[in-house]
Amino acid sequence: MIYLDNAATSFPKPSKVYEEVINCMKNYCANPGRGSHNMAIKSAMKIMEGRNLLSEIFNIKNPLNIVFTSNATEALNIAIKGVLKKGDHVISTVIEHNSVLRPLNSLARLGVEVTLISSDKAGFVNTLDIKEEIKLNTKAIIVNHASNVLGSIQDIYSIGKIAKRYGIIFIVDASQSAGTINIDVEKDNIDLLAFSGHKGLLGPQGTGGLYIREGLKLKVLKEGGTGSSSNSMTQPDELPDRFESGTLNTPGIAGLCAGLSFIRKIGIDNIYKEEMKFMEQLMFELKSLPFIKIYGSTSLKNRTAVLSFNIEGIDASIVGEELNKSAIAVRTGYHCAALIHKIIGTEYMGTVRISPGCFNTHKDIDDLIKSIIEIYKAN
Amino acid sequence: MIYLDNAATSFPKPSKVYEEVINCMKNYCANPGRGSHNMAIKSAMKIMEGRNLLSEIFNIKNPLNIVFTSNATEALNIAIKGVLKKGDHVISTVIEHNSVLRPLNSLARLGVEVTLISSDKAGFVNTLDIKEEIKLNTKAIIVNHASNVLGSIQDIYSIGKIAKRYGIIFIVDASQSAGTINIDVEKDNIDLLAFSGHKGLLGPQGTGGLYIREGLKLKVLKEGGTGSSSNSMTQPDELPDRFESGTLNTPGIAGLCAGLSFIRKIGIDNIYKEEMKFMEQLMFELKSLPFIKIYGSTSLKNRTAVLSFNIEGIDASIVGEELNKSAIAVRTGYHCAALIHKIIGTEYMGTVRISPGCFNTHKDIDDLIKSIIEIYKAN
Repeated sequence: MIYLDNAATSFPKPSKVYEEVINCMKNYCANPGRGSHNMAIKSAMKIMEGRNLLSEIFNIKNPLNIVFTSNATEALNIAIKGVLKKGDHVISTVIEHNSVLRPLNSLARLGVEVTLISSDKAGFVNTLDIKEEIKLNTKAIIVNHASNVLGSIQDIYSIGKIAKRYGIIFIVDASQSAGTINIDVEKDNIDLLAFSGHKGLLGPQGTGGLYIREGLKLKVLKEGGTGSSSNSMTQPDELPDRFESGTLNTPGIAGLCAGLSFIRKIGIDNIYKEEMKFMEQLMFELKSLPFIKIYGSTSLKNRTAVLSFNIEGIDASIVGEELNKSAIAVRTGYHCAALIHKIIGTEYMGTVRISPGCFNTHKDIDDLIKSIIEIYKAN
Repeated sequence: MIYLDNAATSFPKPSKVYEEVINCMKNYCANPGRGSHNMAIKSAMKIMEGRNLLSEIFNIKNPLNIVFTSNATEALNIAIKGVLKKGDHVISTVIEHNSVLRPLNSLARLGVEVTLISSDKAGFVNTLDIKEEIKLNTKAIIVNHASNVLGSIQDIYSIGKIAKRYGIIFIVDASQSAGTINIDVEKDNIDLLAFSGHKGLLGPQGTGGLYIREGLKLKVLKEGGTGSSSNSMTQPDELPDRFESGTLNTPGIAGLCAGLSFIRKIGIDNIYKEEMKFMEQLMFELKSLPFIKIYGSTSLKNRTAVLSFNIEGIDASIVGEELNKSAIAVRTGYHCAALIHKIIGTEYMGTVRISPGCFNTHKDIDDLIKSIIEIYKAN
């Protein structure tokens, strides 16, 4: 199968990811932090290696400020619900994923004031629009670094600067950017960085994480055994334990370590360039087809390797099914982003989304284009 | 290494578990429920296979009433925080794990009334003690099916009967029993069953789940993308989507399927018998050593394969370290159970915990006993 659904989860993974998952499971996978025997220690060291590698990639000073979660959604729920309480105001955008919109929608019913900034049709938010909405009770700004529908990359550097100036907590959803775009929590003034482990970071599913800036106190989402202060009924305050109740996904994190090592070896910039080569080819070819409607920017500037389109007169889901018959995997529909479709005019049809990864080939894109032309002709 | 820490996580797993994790990761691991292409469908079918196998093992009528979580702790947090609100009364026990005690402690501060029933020194709770505490506002009863410190199995059948008679929600923590003791959510009148995937069910870490009885409405812990109602900002009501926001751990659940298939093939009763053979040997040998203090019941009746002890005059952590030097893995300390140590008199020292699994051998226990004798002599 030609896999072009990397925005949902990356596939394949570097071969070392498979090796490390199995090596962990077969040879040392005890419960990290729950025993002092060699296997438990080796498991705990592998978890620590993951924190170290993530710290390097995001320029995080203290690796213990990284909390492992089961996915980015969990990280975002910890961040959003940990920070916001009744009476607070939060600024976010219409281009957010449902992992941000749905928690905000639920908090709005509890008395949190939510302002959602619009984007232009290309999927870009204007930093000044955010600035204008800041009020005395504005507690947080939440921004999707890169859109999973349009691929637009927001200017988190300038938003972070404003957040810092006004003393507002800056939460970044890096689900679609971690591993392909450079993120620096210091330079970008990020207070809470939520990321997925199984997309651009090339780790297995069941992994994700949250960076929490030193000194930032969050309410806890889940309490439970942490392997620390074990004879106390009170959830510990220390990071990462406070937010890591229950057994971690050690083999998943071991695989993530291998994914992160691969990224370090190749370089984020090179991975981005590689993916954008496929995007360049894809954009060029699609632009030349008069029956194709591309959504978002048709330039490659400030974009990730995500492209949404429709074929004139053919339902997105039909296109997806037909591509599947040609053994090409893409995603169709609304992509768990409830509001952006009103901006781009796809609220009743959704889009076909192509998301190449660094392991695709130019032939994959050629085959995709051929199939798209065939589908148009046959319908 | 001789691994005797199966109450923390089972090791090794059946070989098919490793094979299935890797088969999934290498061949079909897309995002289940987020695409209509063959790989996404195969991933979704594997998740459904997991729900079906779990339904069979727990006698659950509708597999869609099973929600996958990252571990039992998450399942317990969903259950406890989903059910209880200010003004409600809840009955639980002192033998609970911190995954129950810590959420209850946090809810107590928000106005939930918590009654914790004591246990006897053997770790058994009297059903009548629970019955006596029932009040008009008693909303839920939460019971640890099998203790991770003493191995005592509670009589969930009789507790479930009382819960049903009084219309109280019955929540069972099956972290230490699922896969080794028969659980029947119908016969035992269980409304919410939380289980770990990586202990007795022999799956990989990063897996767990919650059974939610049909019609029982719970508040949601995490909102986000579910792949369903994708263009709505409102979290869907349907199970399992309502509680499965974000990408699931597909390779983990694939491995869990292999673990569940192994259990079905061997039979839960046979696995229990196998583990209890090692317990019998262990109990017999330890009883014969005058310098050993065993905690909990010294009979094998209503017990799982978990045994806590101390060597006279030697700190539990030292015993653990010395056993580790002999390449024997056990857990020492408080085992994330804050209150039971006051009952058994170990609140200042913890215990050494041995938890054999079905892949241990009698020689493992022999070697353990030899090491224990050596440690006693040398100290």
